[in-house]
Formats: sequence, C-alpha cells, structure tokens
Amino acid sequence: MQENFDLKELTELLDTMQLRLLKEKLIEMNEVDIAAFIEELDSEKTVVVYRMLPKELASDVFACLPVEKQEHIINSITDYELSAIVNDLFVDDAVDMLEELPANVVKRVLKNSTPDTRKLINQFLKYPEGSAGSIMTAEYVGLKKRMTVEEAFAYIRRHGVDKETIYTCYVMDAKRTLEGVVTVKDLLMHPYEEVIGSIMDTHVIKAVTTDDQEEVAESFRKYDLLSLPVVDHENRLVGIVTVDDVVDVMEQEATEDFEKMAAMLPSEKPYLKTGVFALAKNRLAWLLILMVSSMITGSILAKYEAAFAVIPLLVTFIPMLTDTGGNAGSQSSTMIIRGMAVGEIEARDILRVLWKELRVGVIVGVLLGLVNYVQLVVRFPGQEMLCLTVVLSLLATVMLAKTIGCVLPIVAQVLHLDPAIMAAPLITTIVDAVSLIIYFQLACSLLKI
Amino acid sequence: MQENFDLKELTELLDTMQLRLLKEKLIEMNEVDIAAFIEELDSEKTVVVYRMLPKELASDVFACLPVEKQEHIINSITDYELSAIVNDLFVDDAVDMLEELPANVVKRVLKNSTPDTRKLINQFLKYPEGSAGSIMTAEYVGLKKRMTVEEAFAYIRRHGVDKETIYTCYVMDAKRTLEGVVTVKDLLMHPYEEVIGSIMDTHVIKAVTTDDQEEVAESFRKYDLLSLPVVDHENRLVGIVTVDDVVDVMEQEATEDFEKMAAMLPSEKPYLKTGVFALAKNRLAWLLILMVSSMITGSILAKYEAAFAVIPLLVTFIPMLTDTGGNAGSQSSTMIIRGMAVGEIEARDILRVLWKELRVGVIVGVLLGLVNYVQLVVRFPGQEMLCLTVVLSLLATVMLAKTIGCVLPIVAQVLHLDPAIMAAPLITTIVDAVSLIIYFQLACSLLKI
Repeated sequence: MQENFDLKELTELLDTMQLRLLKEKLIEMNEVDIAAFIEELDSEKTVVVYRMLPKELASDVFACLPVEKQEHIINSITDYELSAIVNDLFVDDAVDMLEELPANVVKRVLKNSTPDTRKLINQFLKYPEGSAGSIMTAEYVGLKKRMTVEEAFAYIRRHGVDKETIYTCYVMDAKRTLEGVVTVKDLLMHPYEEVIGSIMDTHVIKAVTTDDQEEVAESFRKYDLLSLPVVDHENRLVGIVTVDDVVDVMEQEATEDFEKMAAMLPSEKPYLKTGVFALAKNRLAWLLILMVSSMITGSILAKYEAAFAVIPLLVTFIPMLTDTGGNAGSQSSTMIIRGMAVGEIEARDILRVLWKELRVGVIVGVLLGLVNYVQLVVRFPGQEMLCLTVVLSLLATVMLAKTIGCVLPIVAQVLHLDPAIMAAPLITTIVDAVSLIIYFQLACSLLKI
Repeated sequence: MQENFDLKELTELLDTMQLRLLKEKLIEMNEVDIAAFIEELDSEKTVVVYRMLPKELASDVFACLPVEKQEHIINSITDYELSAIVNDLFVDDAVDMLEELPANVVKRVLKNSTPDTRKLINQFLKYPEGSAGSIMTAEYVGLKKRMTVEEAFAYIRRHGVDKETIYTCYVMDAKRTLEGVVTVKDLLMHPYEEVIGSIMDTHVIKAVTTDDQEEVAESFRKYDLLSLPVVDHENRLVGIVTVDDVVDVMEQEATEDFEKMAAMLPSEKPYLKTGVFALAKNRLAWLLILMVSSMITGSILAKYEAAFAVIPLLVTFIPMLTDTGGNAGSQSSTMIIRGMAVGEIEARDILRVLWKELRVGVIVGVLLGLVNYVQLVVRFPGQEMLCLTVVLSLLATVMLAKTIGCVLPIVAQVLHLDPAIMAAPLITTIVDAVSLIIYFQLACSLLKI
C-alpha cells in the first residue's frame, strides 16, 4: 500500500510559508491524512493549518484528531468557530471527545452547541461505557411506511448529507417504533411508485441500548452488516451503530484481551501515548499478585528441602517441568478464551472441550515424555528410577495443565468473571504448584527418600 | 441481543413433515440463520430443506454453509441445480469453497460453471493466500467518466442486483485503468445531469493484488472504508475488497496471533471443529522446542549444585524469580507485538520503546523488590545478605525481562520474522536462563559460597 501524501513536502511548504500552495494540496487530501499531518505540528502551527481548511473539511478533520489537539484547537478559536464545529460533528464523535476533555472545556463546548445538539449529547453521555448506546450515533435516515420510493429518494437527497450512513434507512411509525429497514439498494431495484411499506424488510436485526458492544460486534460479524439499529426498551429507535465503529471496537476488545492475558490491566490509550507511570501501574497489580503466589510455590519447595539435599540433581529438572506445564496449560486456556471471545465456545460445551483436551493431553504428554526419556537414559545411565520419576511427572503435569487450562476459563465465564483476566495469568502459577507437588511426591516414593 | 429464530419450532415442523409451514418460516428468515439451522441437520434432511428454498435464497444460504455441508449438497443435486448455484455465487465465496473441496468435486463444479465464471475463478485461485487478491471479489459496479448521474443510476438499476456492493462505484477508462471513485451518496447529492467525471474523487485509496491482507485491514481501519479497489501492477482494476470480509480477516489475524503467542501453530478451523490429532500436532512443535530449551536452563542449575547443596533455601526462591521475570517480559513483548500488529509501533520506534520500558522496569522492579524485601526480612531475620541477593536478583531480572521483552519482537520484525511466534514463546525461556545465572552468580559472590 502506498503512502497517500508526502509529509516532507507539506512541512516544507509550511516552513517556507507558501500557505496558498499548502492549502491547495490539503484540500485534495483525505481528512484522515490531514489529521495525521496536523498531529505532527507544534501548537502554533496547528491552529494556522487548521484555520486554513474550508468549514466542511475542518469538522471532518477535527473528528480525526487526538483529544489533546482537539482541546488545543477549541482553546484557540472563537465561540462562533467552535459552534460550527460542534454542531457539525456526529454525536458519537462529540461524545467521545467530551468524555475526555477537562470540565471547563466541556462547559464551553456545550454552551456553543444548539439546544438540540446539547440535548442529544447529554442523552448519549449517559449510556454506560461499552454498551451499544455508547458507540451509536443519532445521524440516520428515518423513513415512513407510506412514502414511495421516489419520495424516499427526494427525502434522502434533502436530508442525507449530514447522516453517517444513508445506505440503510429505518422505517418508523409516529412514535418512533422501528417497523422495518430498507436499503438504498432495495430502493434502486424497485420502481419509483412502489411504497416503502411493501418493500421494507420487517425482520430487523437490532440491538438494545444496554447490550454489550461485544454482542454488537458479534452481530456485525455474523450477518455481514454495514449498520445496526439500536432501540430502547420500548422498541423505539434511538440511534445506529456503523461498521467503522465496530471495526474499532473489535480491535480494541482484542487488544484488551491480549493485555489481560499477559497479566496487565487494559490501557486507555495506545502504547506510545501512555505515560511510564500509567504503564507501570497497569502492570504492577498482577505482577505483585503473581509474585506472592509464586512465593507460595517456593514454600512448597521448602517442604522438600530434604529431598534435594539428598539428590541435588532433582532441582535441575524443575525448570523443564514447570515451563512445559505452563506452556501446555496456556495453550489450552488461550484456545478456550479466544473461542469464547468470538462466540464459538460456550459454557455448555465444557464436557466436549474437556474430553478433547484430555485426549490432546495424553498424546502430547506421551510424546514429550518419550523424547525426554531417551535423553535422560543417555545422560544418566543406570538411574532408571530417576528417569521414571521425571517422565511420569512430566506426563501428569501436561495432562493436568491441559485440564486446568480448559476448565478454568469456562468456570470464570460461568461465574461472570472475565476469563481473559481470571484464567490466563493464573494458569502458570497453579500449574507450577501442582507440578512441583506431583514431582516431589513421586520422587519421594519412587526414589525412597 | 435476542435470538433471531426458534430452532426448536423449525425442527419440530421438519420432524412432523409440515414442510409447507416450514418453508413459509424459512423464507422469512435471514440466510445466515437458515444456514445455522441446516448445519444442525443430518445429511438426508439437509438436502430436503435445501431444495425447499427458492433459487435466489438458496445460493445465499449455500455461501454461508461450512464446506462439508457444501460438498454434501453438491454431491446430492443435479448438474443443472449445481450450475445455478455456482454462477450465482460471488467469486470470492466460490474460490474459498473450491480451495477446500476434494479435486473430483472441484472438477464437477468447474464443469458446471459458465466459461466466464470458470475463467474468473481460475484467475482468482492463483492469488497467494493472505494477499489482497485472495480476499477480493470481482462483482463491483464500474462506471465511465462521461456518464451522467442519471445514466449511472440507470446502469446500477440494470446491473447492480448481482454486485457485492453497489455503494461505491469505480470509474475506469477503456483499458480498465482506475480513474476515480464515486459513492451512491455522491450520486444522490448531485443533480441528474451532472457528469461522473466532474464529481468523482480521483484520490483513490487502493491496494495492489499482492499486498498483504493485514495492510488491507489497516487501510479499512484508518480510513473507515466500506470497500477498497484492488488493482494489478498496471493500475488496472481487477476486484474489490468489502468490509465484511475485512472484519473476518481482522478476527482471523487476531486469533492467529493469540495462538502463536501461546506457542501454537495457527489452526485452520475453529476449535470445536479441529480434530484431536490436528490440535496435538499444532501444539507439539513448540512444546518440544521449549522443553529442550528449559533443559538447557536446567543444566545451568546443575552448575550451581554446590551452591544449593550448601544453602538449600536458595532453591525455594527460584519459582518466584523465574515466574516474575517471565511475567514481566511477556507483558512488554505483548504490548509491543500487539502495537506492531495494529500498526502503532514501527521498527524505527525501537529507542523510544526501549527508553520507556527501561523506566517502567525500574519502577516496577524497585516496588516489587521493596515488597519482597519486607517479607524476606520478616521471614528470615538476621540473614541480610540472603535477602539482598534475592532482592537484587529480582530487580535485575525484571529490568532485563522488560528490555528483552521489548527488543526481541522488534528485532524479529526487522529480520522479517513473525514477532508473535518468534518473540512471545521464547521470552520466558530466555528470561529464565538469564535470571538464574544472575541469581546464582550474585549468591556465590554475596554469600561467599
């Protein structure tokens, strides 16, 4: 994929104050790229370049900027300019911004929006984070059942410019109850005199404002949607979710799962924009918990001091056993956690999953055991019982790790805990402790210590 | 989100052979849901229900079925019926299916497609897996520059039914060179007599057939696209990628990264549909590699047998040190690998990342060390040097783990290796070895063993 603009050229035009030429270049560009260019500028130049943009484009670019730049621009422009931007933003973008701005800036923004916009923004600010309501927007095309295709087109031509998507239109009655959907494709494929009521699809896939955003993403994935209507608990249409926001939700949810599974609290911002203290804070909680748990594992070892005082060689197999157990366990838990995240595995599949993992555990455990046995016999000839102890411990560890690895995430799910955070980081610690106990118990009885 | 159909009711209608009523229910349903219903049926009933569907709907449902069901249906219907399905499928769906069917079935499918379809399918089958070419489809609306808006609408009305998306139209010259794009929204917002050439956008965001599908997904995310044109190396339009396929790509890429980072080869099919032997095979390779590496770690321990023969207590701190190191390292590597996957972090950021991780390492290491020191002093009063050895080792381990954790994925990327597979599983093993050496070296010198 080629770069879509020449950053160096633009910077040079700005530095040499060839502003007319710069403006010509800018208005040919995509809003995302203009925002990327502005992001790199210092605060003074930011406002110079921003003011250069035509009004329409300016709001689009504004919506793509990070919140610090938005705040800076808000603080540098007049109330009149601000009012134009705020009333032009899609409600979801405005809400995202307001949630992060300091209170005094929020106040000024709301003061400069029209009463209608203000009311809408205030309503949207109330939906809980991560709900369908929090990611929806209010700009959709609403039609009536008795309109003809021709009237619908006329309506879209008149009102469609400011809508986030015009391609799916929503049919409502006077009380805003959702009655059906009709796509622009349907409109194009039917004669002008046809009535909307007779071509609309009444089996609408929809979400309720309080639904979880992950369920919304799941619907988009399953039904290949471009947009999804969101209704309140009385089935009244309150907004729509568009596919571009769902793409962001999916990416964000996956990133959060990666972070949780690596024992971190999810971060609010991208890595390079997160401060050192925030990063440290996100990582410290689980590191502490896991450090304390591994001290408990350590104290298990202390119990068997006698054993490795007699045969110090026993200690050298500990990393192999605990690492292999940890890896085997996190393989299983990762598969199950991801399967549940994308909606493939459900709690009721627990027995199928367990039976599968047990068999995988036997195959993998026996093969790893065989490889290990061969090298042990070569390295320690004559010490059959020692070799047997290590190999049997390995087999038991792998099988137990697979079992715990698949059961733990499902149990977490049933208890309404997050499997990614409750199962993934704990697996290693639990498997470590269990495998050491098995190992030293076997050693004590087989080697008669 | 509510269920969109009543599986029990449908099954009952089928079991009691109330086929007319069943058909009435089915034709009201979404193709995805019908496919979900058919998926649960045995082979005999599959064909009964499938034949019940009207021709148009039948092809849509067919595209949503898993390949085993598709194969079963293909083998149970006449050449005439098969021909109708194949020519009705979108090329990308047909290609996905053909790539998994056995050769004799592929032959029969191609025999029953029109020469045009066959040519297209053969062309598409040649694009490498994971390329833009492999996920694109050939069904798009192509317009000419000199058409008016009115003519464009007439063209879409005539030819648009079978196109995967009609909402973005592509403007080409006689040689199929891509000249611009125009959306149906643009068409609706301009008067009928306007010429396409004057309203089309000539700054087209596009991909080349050989581009990686991850780059394609990145463009969709960045520019909030609904579709993206794909050109060959002479800038001739050959197909388009639609957002629904990109959503699948994103999910699949994230799942693969989860699997790789948990030391598995990525699986072809969803978990519940993957056989036990395939699962075992995917997991065994890395378990073996990591088992052997941890034996090496074990042999490091063997070198210090003398040390823990003198002070057996030293052994009990091993799990705490290696676990904390492993966790600290995988926190960093996960952040970096994910950041690179979503395009936020690039190789040239290495110094910024390193400086960040070093500072995080100091903060986290010092705090964990303090907590540890307090409990050590309480548990082992009078053994200051032992406490110091453990705490200093912990600090060094955490800092090294953070450093290795952030550098390794970037180095893998620079060497054109996959960071997810090359860095994530290896981190623990490397950190284990390094932390044990530091620990016992410190112990030997501080405790004078």
